[in-house]
Amino acid sequence: MKKFFSVKDVASVSEIVKEAMELKANPNTLESLGKYKTLGLVFLNPSLRTRLSTQKAAMNLGMNVMVMNMDKDGWALETQDGVVMNGTTVEHIREAAAVMGEYCDILGLRSFPKLKNRDEDYSEDLFNKFIEYCGVPVVSLESATRHPLQSLTDIITITEYKVTEKPKVVLAWAPHVKALPQAVPNSFSEWMCQAQVEGLVDFTIAHPEGYQLSEEFTEGAKISNDLDQSLKNADFVYVKNWSSYEEYGEVYPVIENWLIDNEKLALTNNAKVMHCLPVRRDLELSAEVLDGPNSLVIKEAGNRVWAAQVVLKRMLESLEKNK
Amino acid sequence: MKKFFSVKDVASVSEIVKEAMELKANPNTLESLGKYKTLGLVFLNPSLRTRLSTQKAAMNLGMNVMVMNMDKDGWALETQDGVVMNGTTVEHIREAAAVMGEYCDILGLRSFPKLKNRDEDYSEDLFNKFIEYCGVPVVSLESATRHPLQSLTDIITITEYKVTEKPKVVLAWAPHVKALPQAVPNSFSEWMCQAQVEGLVDFTIAHPEGYQLSEEFTEGAKISNDLDQSLKNADFVYVKNWSSYEEYGEVYPVIENWLIDNEKLALTNNAKVMHCLPVRRDLELSAEVLDGPNSLVIKEAGNRVWAAQVVLKRMLESLEKNK
Amino acid sequence: MKKFFSVKDVASVSEIVKEAMELKANPNTLESLGKYKTLGLVFLNPSLRTRLSTQKAAMNLGMNVMVMNMDKDGWALETQDGVVMNGTTVEHIREAAAVMGEYCDILGLRSFPKLKNRDEDYSEDLFNKFIEYCGVPVVSLESATRHPLQSLTDIITITEYKVTEKPKVVLAWAPHVKALPQAVPNSFSEWMCQAQVEGLVDFTIAHPEGYQLSEEFTEGAKISNDLDQSLKNADFVYVKNWSSYEEYGEVYPVIENWLIDNEKLALTNNAKVMHCLPVRRDLELSAEVLDGPNSLVIKEAGNRVWAAQVVLKRMLESLEKNK
Repeated sequence: MKKFFSVKDVASVSEIVKEAMELKANPNTLESLGKYKTLGLVFLNPSLRTRLSTQKAAMNLGMNVMVMNMDKDGWALETQDGVVMNGTTVEHIREAAAVMGEYCDILGLRSFPKLKNRDEDYSEDLFNKFIEYCGVPVVSLESATRHPLQSLTDIITITEYKVTEKPKVVLAWAPHVKALPQAVPNSFSEWMCQAQVEGLVDFTIAHPEGYQLSEEFTEGAKISNDLDQSLKNADFVYVKNWSSYEEYGEVYPVIENWLIDNEKLALTNNAKVMHCLPVRRDLELSAEVLDGPNSLVIKEAGNRVWAAQVVLKRMLESLEKNK
Repeated sequence: MKKFFSVKDVASVSEIVKEAMELKANPNTLESLGKYKTLGLVFLNPSLRTRLSTQKAAMNLGMNVMVMNMDKDGWALETQDGVVMNGTTVEHIREAAAVMGEYCDILGLRSFPKLKNRDEDYSEDLFNKFIEYCGVPVVSLESATRHPLQSLTDIITITEYKVTEKPKVVLAWAPHVKALPQAVPNSFSEWMCQAQVEGLVDFTIAHPEGYQLSEEFTEGAKISNDLDQSLKNADFVYVKNWSSYEEYGEVYPVIENWLIDNEKLALTNNAKVMHCLPVRRDLELSAEVLDGPNSLVIKEAGNRVWAAQVVLKRMLESLEKNK
Repeated sequence: MKKFFSVKDVASVSEIVKEAMELKANPNTLESLGKYKTLGLVFLNPSLRTRLSTQKAAMNLGMNVMVMNMDKDGWALETQDGVVMNGTTVEHIREAAAVMGEYCDILGLRSFPKLKNRDEDYSEDLFNKFIEYCGVPVVSLESATRHPLQSLTDIITITEYKVTEKPKVVLAWAPHVKALPQAVPNSFSEWMCQAQVEGLVDFTIAHPEGYQLSEEFTEGAKISNDLDQSLKNADFVYVKNWSSYEEYGEVYPVIENWLIDNEKLALTNNAKVMHCLPVRRDLELSAEVLDGPNSLVIKEAGNRVWAAQVVLKRMLESLEKNK
């Protein structure tokens, strides 16, 4: 594995989930695989779960980890080519990425979208350039359009907690006060669609009108604007807010109640409730559900380690092969 | 040991001091105890000594360390229950603590008081919630009302440098330009009072009128408003500023001279001078004393490692037992 | 080696380069040398290459590393003696340095000049005090007047890529929009002058009028105000901007073209082009050269590891001897 950016970077969802579960059962057996290898984690945006879980995963594999918060420890990067750099950007992504590749065997990068210009965000220009120039395997720690370590975590968690062979999974839009990226729902959806192809889940997306995701990520998903109807027979409800894709970055007023509380939960098949965190209590998801027996959010966050570890393991193995 | 928050978390001051001195003599003999274990250090306020010494202690024990500066690397945490999180806080302490507990075997937390509302600060609400929700042993890296790693360091240092069986120790209030918390003097006092019960020291507190500490921390201490009188026969002078407990967070003007200089030092039994640092020279403590032969401040800071190491050692041992 | 601050801290440039190349060939053979040893990296200014490469070098030697960003993780340090600290500085360099020396076996320090007062900057007061008070070996991670790890890297890179016995090396001033320190050119020049004494290079400095460096750093160098003439027969061109030393920190308008592009490069002996990075494209150095076959900037940045590693190795060896 040279790149972990989207579901397309894994041949089989069920196989990588199985491999991750084996690491969870035996976290420290592969510490010689990462010996003398360095993971560099580059954050252009803040992070709690992603940083700690990826750092932990790397340490489980015997790797050294170096963390670089570009906004705090570093400086503004230029991403455009052909500009005379006489403004506020201090270093070009071409040099910055290549230099980090000199010091690290594997790099992770986090960068959020600006939510101003859809074409710019969805081009994933920064990420693609970083991958192109750094010369080492790159794991996405969340990009403008996807959050693959989160989505891999989510399918691991669903596999771990499912009680039926092919559970019904509902991605349910939730309210928020800010305009949030589509990265998490895009990514969750593309992983669930692939899991559905592999016969692992039955996948539905429920959102208010105006909040449809890009079709690129939703092929094969049932899509509905009716939350209550969608929740029927649900085994897992994945709660997440996102801003509009069509009117890019807009937040439409939603009159109906899209907050998952115990009353909504009663419509489901005693569904487990998931959220990628951070979550705003009683705004995105009710406190009663978060504190109740159906919430998986903490266990889900814990599983971030095994998603990161299986990806790093595969990258280390491909470095071994190319020696 | 599941929690290190106050002197009440140790059964015997003299025994933990003895154990710490053994670690100082042989820092690296227990590196298998912490192997595959991760310490997470969470800072809601800046730190120099505490971060470096605790990190060093953990590495001596073979642990991995992850540092999280919530203000710089992270975001604002909500601590109140029952609020709709539609404001500036991004994540609730319930989730944040629980998630960190998923990634770490032991957690450290630093959080200063706001010095606005005494009941709120002295309730130690944030700390108690963090301990409750994270599910792993927690070491205080300084809370609103206490700084136990500093106080344990201080009794280690007194034991190391005492020349009489039962030295006279004076906690002496010192001037400052800012309103400082009572955490260090509270904590020093509760540790000295317990050390006095164990027959290790004779303990006096000297402060100007209006600066009495909460009685909760000073049981058994001699308390005086006369600095010169208190300094007589002193073997150790522990210098520290604090703001008023009674008129909470207030700074009263003090007319008499409370700055420890060589003239004041001449009143003592050639006392050693201590300070937790950082110290403002010639404001809190005279440069001549800091640079003179009686100052222990650097050696005291060095001993922070052994205080942290003995606490982490005990926590690791209790994790072993509970396996 | 107790201090790595200028070229005067090495007895022979050619020998330390040879030793660094041996480490590059076998990076991990000395990991027992640094076992149980801690490197503290203290940054008063931001850093990308220096932090990552020094951290990597230390890990190659088996050391633990603790990073301290004083501006972000810490607080303002007082450097003047004899002042009453009743202002904004929270801790004196005397205590801060001594305390870090308690926790670390070797310290690194980065601090930029303020470019306001030449005597103050060129006194290297902060650095000298830090070295004096911390009590352990100190490696400069760039000071007000020098950047020795960069310069050692540069002579390593020149040795690695030279095709003639004694290459002609030209330090060429380059345009910029900001007033930059003289640390990198000073340092490069003092290392090249010493390398010239050892018969390793032939060294020329080219800069516009008004940009002469302090003579302290340029003894033996050919100095010219004619870029095109200087570039003739050059085997290496080292591109760097700096502000005026004479009219300290001033930026004079320069009318002639000092930007190295392919046309300028054609004047040379197919010279390799170097820059310490970060570089502003098409302002300091043309994109066509940076992306062309003559650029060494990425390989040069990669060599930062071996410069740091050889310095840390020598410091660790002197710690061993003094046991």
